[in-house]
Amino acid sequence: MSLQERLVSGDVRALARLMTYAENDYPEATRVIKELYDKTGGAYVIGITGPPGAGKSTLTDKLTKALRARGKTVGIIAVDPTSPFTGGAILGDRIRMQDLFTDQGVFIRSMGTRGHLGGLSRATQTAVRLLDIFGKDYIFIETVGVGQSEVDIVKTADSVVMVLMPGLGDDIQAIKAGIMEIGDVFAINKADLDGADRTKIEIEMMLDLNENREWRPPISKVVAVDNSGIDDLLERIQNHRYYLESSGELVSRRLRNTKQELVSLIRDRVVEFILEESGERFSVDRLVESIASKDMDIYTAAEEILRKIKK
Amino acid sequence: MSLQERLVSGDVRALARLMTYAENDYPEATRVIKELYDKTGGAYVIGITGPPGAGKSTLTDKLTKALRARGKTVGIIAVDPTSPFTGGAILGDRIRMQDLFTDQGVFIRSMGTRGHLGGLSRATQTAVRLLDIFGKDYIFIETVGVGQSEVDIVKTADSVVMVLMPGLGDDIQAIKAGIMEIGDVFAINKADLDGADRTKIEIEMMLDLNENREWRPPISKVVAVDNSGIDDLLERIQNHRYYLESSGELVSRRLRNTKQELVSLIRDRVVEFILEESGERFSVDRLVESIASKDMDIYTAAEEILRKIKK
Repeated sequence: MSLQERLVSGDVRALARLMTYAENDYPEATRVIKELYDKTGGAYVIGITGPPGAGKSTLTDKLTKALRARGKTVGIIAVDPTSPFTGGAILGDRIRMQDLFTDQGVFIRSMGTRGHLGGLSRATQTAVRLLDIFGKDYIFIETVGVGQSEVDIVKTADSVVMVLMPGLGDDIQAIKAGIMEIGDVFAINKADLDGADRTKIEIEMMLDLNENREWRPPISKVVAVDNSGIDDLLERIQNHRYYLESSGELVSRRLRNTKQELVSLIRDRVVEFILEESGERFSVDRLVESIASKDMDIYTAAEEILRKIKK
Repeated sequence: MSLQERLVSGDVRALARLMTYAENDYPEATRVIKELYDKTGGAYVIGITGPPGAGKSTLTDKLTKALRARGKTVGIIAVDPTSPFTGGAILGDRIRMQDLFTDQGVFIRSMGTRGHLGGLSRATQTAVRLLDIFGKDYIFIETVGVGQSEVDIVKTADSVVMVLMPGLGDDIQAIKAGIMEIGDVFAINKADLDGADRTKIEIEMMLDLNENREWRPPISKVVAVDNSGIDDLLERIQNHRYYLESSGELVSRRLRNTKQELVSLIRDRVVEFILEESGERFSVDRLVESIASKDMDIYTAAEEILRKIKK
């Protein structure tokens, strides 16, 4: 059987191999997806993000168990752009719940940056699509940190859960603007610690600033390690899903994401194309020499190549 | 006088305004650089990177004072991609050495991510070029964290100082592969703490793995807050500069960086071009619809646009 047939038939080893191809940007992964594109779009994708130490992976694991208890299958992609080469190992070696690893209904894979950041974003999209075709009902994209690159990746999810914890203090101020805005549902984890109510008030105040959005993100208090509040959080995520589906917003959100991904794909390929054709049509190397010798400035050189592309 | 004339004549307020233009990606900044491109290349650019808490900004400040004592002028760009919108404020508000701020020979600017990561990298390059044209002898690019995006930015420097501290333990293992490789000079800061010797041995061991490089990065022990070891560190950076200059490596390193920047510039402009022309030649929106309706997969759509560009 081909890898493609094995993927559709639910062969986990075929999935695992294709996920590795995705991570390494081998064309085999996208070739399979091309063939099976009509099988995409069935999975619901949930992004889990928040500052380091908020307990994102524990929360993801508990949400996964709650979904499993409801008979749903789950894929988890843990994204770690801060570890260019050891990403996979760091997260993979971390002790996640043993029972998740032995559960055939759950597939976990961590992804580090191999090469540049654009690569990680592309690899994550490819991985999501493979899990989708494989037939997973839910896919989590979990980030390690809360930097701009993680935000860009997690934004591609259908619902984004922003995980915070009490006592972040000034940090909440720091991540408030820009990043907080991507949260569709807020989870205050470790809510048994002092300051959970204050954190909730701070989030409410921030949400008050943005009153004219149709969906007001709910705030859920959880203690992930005790499995407390997980059902409530899951319900709020489901509510967001119902809102997206009934309002038509899910379709337009996915259209927006598709457009962005398409433009990124083209961007990456154009770069490959320009570099491959170096010396022939675009002569990048010759232009670089001209820049170095001050015969031309770098912006004019970029415009010259762009002019050739536009023709 | 035009902004351009004021910049060359050493008007700090003109520089400050152009740096703001650079940060916001206004064309005025690049227009001025285009006109004055033959005045670039005189400054020596030093990248300062390392994990949070290693004391990078204190170290940068002390190196700056040491250079000032030698009669050199300095520009500092503090890069913080983890704070998409508050970056400037966070670093700007932080109490840096007061005497640096009042020293006319030093210009400090912090830069956060406004928009996407590519934007920060581009803004940093523009800022470096402005400081270079202004006539600064040395320019520091200092990063807040040590993620892939910071690495990509700091790699554009002539010399990269990797700042570490004792007791990082497993963290050193984590950042060892990939990131550690960009260090041309290592500084163990807070070297009065326990474990400084062990950290040094760990770095040496890592460097032993890469024996066939011509330049073996030296390791300098410093206590930045006490201004201890700063002269030694500066001497090692200068040694690296002499090595680069005498071996011709500085020229080829800058050529490599120019090529990479040129390709990035083209990549960004191609995206603008494709989106502007949407509906006309490339019909991105029509393709997105086809992808959504599964009439076409996203990879084939990307190839279709690329085919038109290649023609």
